[in-house]
Amino acid sequence: MDTITLWNRYRTHLLHDPETGLMLDISRMNFSEGFLEAMEPAIRKAFAEMAELEGGAIANPDEGRMVGHYWLRTPALAPTGEIAAEIGETVRRIREFAAGVHDGSIATPDGRPFRKFLVVGIGGSALGPQFVADALGDAGNPLTPYFFDNTDPDGMDRVLAGIGAGLAETLTLVISKSGGTKETRNGMLEAEAAYRRAGLDFPRYAVAVTGEGSELDRAATQAGWIARFPMWDWVGGRTSVTSAVGLLPAAIQGLDIDSMLEGARLCDALTRRTDTARNPAALLALMWHHATGGKGSRDMVVLPYKDRLLLFSRYLQQLIMESIGKELDRDGNVVCQGISVYGNKGATDQHAYVQQLREGVNNFFVTFVEVLRDRRGMSLPVEPGVTSGDYLAGFLQGSRTALSEKGRESLTITIPEVSPRTVGMLIALFERAVGLYASLVNINAYHQPGVEAGKKAAGTVLSLQAGIIAHLRGTGSSLTADEIAAALGRPDTAETVFRTLLHMAANPDHGIRMEPAEPLTASRFSAQA
Amino acid sequence: MDTITLWNRYRTHLLHDPETGLMLDISRMNFSEGFLEAMEPAIRKAFAEMAELEGGAIANPDEGRMVGHYWLRTPALAPTGEIAAEIGETVRRIREFAAGVHDGSIATPDGRPFRKFLVVGIGGSALGPQFVADALGDAGNPLTPYFFDNTDPDGMDRVLAGIGAGLAETLTLVISKSGGTKETRNGMLEAEAAYRRAGLDFPRYAVAVTGEGSELDRAATQAGWIARFPMWDWVGGRTSVTSAVGLLPAAIQGLDIDSMLEGARLCDALTRRTDTARNPAALLALMWHHATGGKGSRDMVVLPYKDRLLLFSRYLQQLIMESIGKELDRDGNVVCQGISVYGNKGATDQHAYVQQLREGVNNFFVTFVEVLRDRRGMSLPVEPGVTSGDYLAGFLQGSRTALSEKGRESLTITIPEVSPRTVGMLIALFERAVGLYASLVNINAYHQPGVEAGKKAAGTVLSLQAGIIAHLRGTGSSLTADEIAAALGRPDTAETVFRTLLHMAANPDHGIRMEPAEPLTASRFSAQA
Repeated sequence: MDTITLWNRYRTHLLHDPETGLMLDISRMNFSEGFLEAMEPAIRKAFAEMAELEGGAIANPDEGRMVGHYWLRTPALAPTGEIAAEIGETVRRIREFAAGVHDGSIATPDGRPFRKFLVVGIGGSALGPQFVADALGDAGNPLTPYFFDNTDPDGMDRVLAGIGAGLAETLTLVISKSGGTKETRNGMLEAEAAYRRAGLDFPRYAVAVTGEGSELDRAATQAGWIARFPMWDWVGGRTSVTSAVGLLPAAIQGLDIDSMLEGARLCDALTRRTDTARNPAALLALMWHHATGGKGSRDMVVLPYKDRLLLFSRYLQQLIMESIGKELDRDGNVVCQGISVYGNKGATDQHAYVQQLREGVNNFFVTFVEVLRDRRGMSLPVEPGVTSGDYLAGFLQGSRTALSEKGRESLTITIPEVSPRTVGMLIALFERAVGLYASLVNINAYHQPGVEAGKKAAGTVLSLQAGIIAHLRGTGSSLTADEIAAALGRPDTAETVFRTLLHMAANPDHGIRMEPAEPLTASRFSAQA
Repeated sequence: MDTITLWNRYRTHLLHDPETGLMLDISRMNFSEGFLEAMEPAIRKAFAEMAELEGGAIANPDEGRMVGHYWLRTPALAPTGEIAAEIGETVRRIREFAAGVHDGSIATPDGRPFRKFLVVGIGGSALGPQFVADALGDAGNPLTPYFFDNTDPDGMDRVLAGIGAGLAETLTLVISKSGGTKETRNGMLEAEAAYRRAGLDFPRYAVAVTGEGSELDRAATQAGWIARFPMWDWVGGRTSVTSAVGLLPAAIQGLDIDSMLEGARLCDALTRRTDTARNPAALLALMWHHATGGKGSRDMVVLPYKDRLLLFSRYLQQLIMESIGKELDRDGNVVCQGISVYGNKGATDQHAYVQQLREGVNNFFVTFVEVLRDRRGMSLPVEPGVTSGDYLAGFLQGSRTALSEKGRESLTITIPEVSPRTVGMLIALFERAVGLYASLVNINAYHQPGVEAGKKAAGTVLSLQAGIIAHLRGTGSSLTADEIAAALGRPDTAETVFRTLLHMAANPDHGIRMEPAEPLTASRFSAQA
């Protein structure tokens, strides 16, 4: 297409919301004239299903749950007055708690103000808080955030070393819906041990965000933690960032959670429109369908041209891939759905992989995120009449054009600036797009049946490990993996036994010694006395 | 396959190097019995081409360049004594310079030791240094690293706010091979302005890493910067981490660059083996070929189970995608090659997208990176006889098994710990694998013809911007994008004009005012007096 035709296409399809400044440009997606019309019945069905979901239907039938993240921004929508009241009350308590932390009325046991906070969580209990903290945080925030988002011992040691003596003025938030996530439980125990080593009484630094009555909730109650905030079973982990999971860390960091909620609420209103051409979430979902054939045949490359949005793609990986990546559709057919998501930021990624995007395998579409405002205040000229920000904007336009010339598709989301309000908007926009897309391809976006298998297999490894240790201690001799597996009556587990032994022998904790052999799989292992 | 068969497959194919502890497990890739044999002639050809490259052939014919990153670790291999001497001399100067920074003989103008350093670079001049700094850095390092890796004004402001008053003890390294990369030039100017605002004389805090005689080299010489280190045209940006580009920042941070070079050298020796089954880079390249059909039909998901290796996938995105993602093969045929790379870290990503990996679209293979050592010292038990690190190891095994059960392929690289030596090994391993793979699919891995188009298109935008500003200032009236484009004699650029105006109107720098209309594309713009 020539540039005049493209300009007409741009003008025809540009969606702009004057109230929020949100823009969506789908002109560089190569959908045909008839596509939107052909998809209209399907998207109308998706709108109807979304309305039922918002009304309190059991939208996650496998788990028998309502799906209520939209109520968090508009409590009046909640199906019962109790739920609406709980939402409002929780936000009020979060505001009050954060104000107390900031004014020093909630302080360390010796009366000093908290200066840092450590979030212990993983998945939905970390990605949202991390994205928000990085997108909106500044050096001047009253508290500095840290994260335990894994069960890596060295990783936790490094975070603790970064906090250093500041642990004595660090508030720890343990976030786990079920209260039973092992990584988070481990992180909590490692944090607790660190406080203990520093002579500090952990419960007086600890706050829980968890389901009422969960293991974590009970432990926090018993030990007398500073506070507890609720998670509800009608909020999924990957859509929990506008619940206490995301709001409490943000408020403690000193970010404006009311604006974030307002941005999400405004975007919810926009994306509830049943006029498809004016609903940015519907257009996104339809473009995903167009680009991937409704089957995940192309990856979504997320390229925000703004450092603060670096973690957006990581947030979207969970939101999109965990929601859409399903084996079965809602009728039980094997469909192996999904959309792979990756990306970091522009212009930086132009120097990493735009080479492949422009020339290489055409297995993707790009989602550019453009931020109009460059910085607070004026810029210096880097050349006469040109700023660093002009370059950033120019590179985005340049990449969009260079890709389009080669038939590579992209869409562009524009926001006026990175602020609590626009971050709320982006979150709500993609939450809705995911929900609508799931309807288009007939899958349940709100469960995650595939994550149990890996956890279960890990559990098997750990119980095998206990058996290995016990056996080696019992025999006192030096055995191969095959011999140990046979002795445990599980010759089929020899490989797992071998790999577990390798890990144990590399660490001092279990007193396992290795006598390396060649081949390595014939090595012998023993337990030290 | 049952677990006994898999254990046999594991034992048959496991590659283990006793000297470095490096292991490669390809047993969960579903290649057939005959695959390796069938590929043997192709990999032998790749070995021969690699030997020529190492011998100083013009391995990058489009740019008429030798490709010499392997010489950086083994200078004796370099084709001339001059090159060998330059490599050795540069490493010596880096060691000496870093020692001077650490002992205070190279200090701030008022004699204080440097405590922080700011790397200004992008692409190959940032990704390697960032990966190394994050993989090996600790709270106790003598200097703390910061990065400008983009031309985002707010991003730079935020880094500077993080440095704060510490700018007076911050060394700035400007890294640009050509010295002409605009993002880096802008970053340097923004940094220079920040020093000036703080009343500090920038050249006395500045070090250049660049090609001799480049724009940057001449500017640094003229202004009397503290030091200059060379980049050579026979080292590509994405393979420059063992040149001054990666070694200087690492040495300044206090990391052991000699061990890093040694690790790379040892891995170079391993990956020079012509016995395919004992060459880990050859096996990687062959597995990539198997998984992607030699055509990029599957994505490479990189999952290191270690927080310190979080940036490894970002480093590999450039190394692999910019090397392999090519339109033309070496005979000029249109092939649109590539392998898409993404991933963050395990176990964290299990809570993000392993749902899709296990159940969803089977368009990937996983590269697990396992680190045997959990942490320095002993771990606390999180359950009787179980540590956080046991969980991490268990989750890796569990995911590998859960994926394999569903026919999803993975390979596993194991290293004993994260150290300068193993980081050097990982870098060298993938550099070699990329080179061999490029031979297998007959492409030039060492150029990047596709990145120019985006830069050129950006240049067009910026020159158009100058025209827009001049025209609006000249007329004094309020015009639409269409009217301005027509007035500039370029009606075909109306869309670019509109988008450029939107950006300018959102910032104070150019005095462009917008009168929004509906539709937005009909808005009027004017220049303030």
